[in-house]
Amino acid sequence: MTEVFELGDFQTTTGYTIPGAKLSYKTHGSLSASKDNAILFPHFLGGAPEYVEMWIGEGRPLDPTKYFIVCPGQFGNGTSSSPSNTPPPIDRGAFPPVRFADDVIAQHKLATEQFGITEFQLLLGWSTGALQIYEWASRFPTMVKRLCCIAGAPKPSPWTRLWLRTVLEEPITSDPAWNNGFYSEGRAVQGGLRRMGHGAALTLPPPGFYREGHDVPSTLGFASVDDYVSRVWETYWLSQDPNDLLVQIRKAIAADPSRGGDMDATLRGITARTSVIAFTGDPMFPPADSRHDAERIPNASFREIPSAFGHLATFGFADDDRKAVDAALAELLAA
Amino acid sequence: MTEVFELGDFQTTTGYTIPGAKLSYKTHGSLSASKDNAILFPHFLGGAPEYVEMWIGEGRPLDPTKYFIVCPGQFGNGTSSSPSNTPPPIDRGAFPPVRFADDVIAQHKLATEQFGITEFQLLLGWSTGALQIYEWASRFPTMVKRLCCIAGAPKPSPWTRLWLRTVLEEPITSDPAWNNGFYSEGRAVQGGLRRMGHGAALTLPPPGFYREGHDVPSTLGFASVDDYVSRVWETYWLSQDPNDLLVQIRKAIAADPSRGGDMDATLRGITARTSVIAFTGDPMFPPADSRHDAERIPNASFREIPSAFGHLATFGFADDDRKAVDAALAELLAA
Repeated sequence: MTEVFELGDFQTTTGYTIPGAKLSYKTHGSLSASKDNAILFPHFLGGAPEYVEMWIGEGRPLDPTKYFIVCPGQFGNGTSSSPSNTPPPIDRGAFPPVRFADDVIAQHKLATEQFGITEFQLLLGWSTGALQIYEWASRFPTMVKRLCCIAGAPKPSPWTRLWLRTVLEEPITSDPAWNNGFYSEGRAVQGGLRRMGHGAALTLPPPGFYREGHDVPSTLGFASVDDYVSRVWETYWLSQDPNDLLVQIRKAIAADPSRGGDMDATLRGITARTSVIAFTGDPMFPPADSRHDAERIPNASFREIPSAFGHLATFGFADDDRKAVDAALAELLAA
Repeated sequence: MTEVFELGDFQTTTGYTIPGAKLSYKTHGSLSASKDNAILFPHFLGGAPEYVEMWIGEGRPLDPTKYFIVCPGQFGNGTSSSPSNTPPPIDRGAFPPVRFADDVIAQHKLATEQFGITEFQLLLGWSTGALQIYEWASRFPTMVKRLCCIAGAPKPSPWTRLWLRTVLEEPITSDPAWNNGFYSEGRAVQGGLRRMGHGAALTLPPPGFYREGHDVPSTLGFASVDDYVSRVWETYWLSQDPNDLLVQIRKAIAADPSRGGDMDATLRGITARTSVIAFTGDPMFPPADSRHDAERIPNASFREIPSAFGHLATFGFADDDRKAVDAALAELLAA
């Protein structure tokens, strides 16, 4: 069950106050007496603390019988402080801009004040979860023993920023029902949410995913490409509140642990033992870019995992992807 | 200057009549007395007969001092019969559905009735121009001596159909100003037209096109990725009428020279000497798919051209792309 940590009146790095702010989270396993078995695993865009659970399990590297795994939420995820659950005057379309730095500061408060954790054995994150853990590693380096970036980066590339705006932000803000965030209910913006799904279905898989006669959705049991787009991608976004999504989307667009400064220096300053994992054919975080990130981090290794799913490996559809990621995590945790 | 061929009352293959229908066209060079030097070069989506001129020139394979090059328009291109220029009751959003088969029938009338051409030395087309020439080769095989498909296919792939709907069709039809095609003026739908540009800019270039510090728009003289997206892609679509574009988009989605039948048999029936050209990293018409097309055509060769532009090679930005395409055309015309 998702729990809620009370942040009190939270001052954002962008210069606003969220009164009675909340951070949702979920934990797996028990914190040891010496508090030396904690892992932090923030979630990706459109997700929730539950969305990363397919990577956690007894006998696997993220083993809740060995580790205390904290899966924190983030502002805008609907269970933490978000446009959809915050009272006026900062409700809905008037929710203040926030950054991943704010999430990391809130997550740090949760870790230190609620649990008394002074060091994590591992921080890991997929996609925009990775954007958060790079912010963590640069902001609180002594608390991060190991870092695992999976299908992510410290900062989105120019293509990925264009993607976030074109595929996620604009379908919402251009919807006739959006009304600057003061729509009657989230489902009123259903057209925009569906179009986000179409764009994601189009752009996230690697080349060949839909190849006539050899398409991957068929192997997953879908009746057609349209069936897959509707059942997976329209469903994914329709379950979410548009303003909440915009908060997460805009954090991703603005992500930059160097704070407009020198990214080489920021990466050089990461002290954690780091593993950077990329997937063949992932346009969002291409292997060549991830390799370049790893080369700039002092104690980092890089690995590319061949996958028919590209960025969608995040969802763990394929046994091979799960095994390859688990192997990388086991190796990192043993080091 | 673009000329107009009067088609009279034109019955479409979809079961409608366009009274006083028109097909625009432009020619280069002169038809020989024996009418044995004609080339047909239809244009791609959002284009016009003028848009293919960068591939025509004295001393080049498409040499107007040697050949009579007919660049026909198509329904929905704004100068041929289109929603924007047809009187009620089939004006604007009420324009009937048409197919590339209708364009090819109209182009055939132009060729035979206006010019008395009985055989083309070459039919060539880029992108949706290629969709038209495959329809030509299957519908009027004896008139097509040589065929050159460049960054195209007989039929769009499942990914490409999803692209046509998501990136081109939905931004228009979801626009608050669209009003089922009865907008006050085309520019009223400017938001949707701009979003088409964003989606095209995002999805058409090959991987690495926007890579931080190595992006191609900088080498073309643009100030930033945003500058490129705005000046190239917003401009491209903003100059067009939304209903006219929808006609062209929907023809591309429906393109199928096998008419729902056996594509292998359709391709086996192509008698023209054929060259199929694809560009590395073109997601719209991937080299692997184009190779598969060429393998099914009796007298066809395939070549892949490495290009930093992928599908955008259509616009001839790069000297190397121009040289590689010209070499392929010269070889085909000499055969």
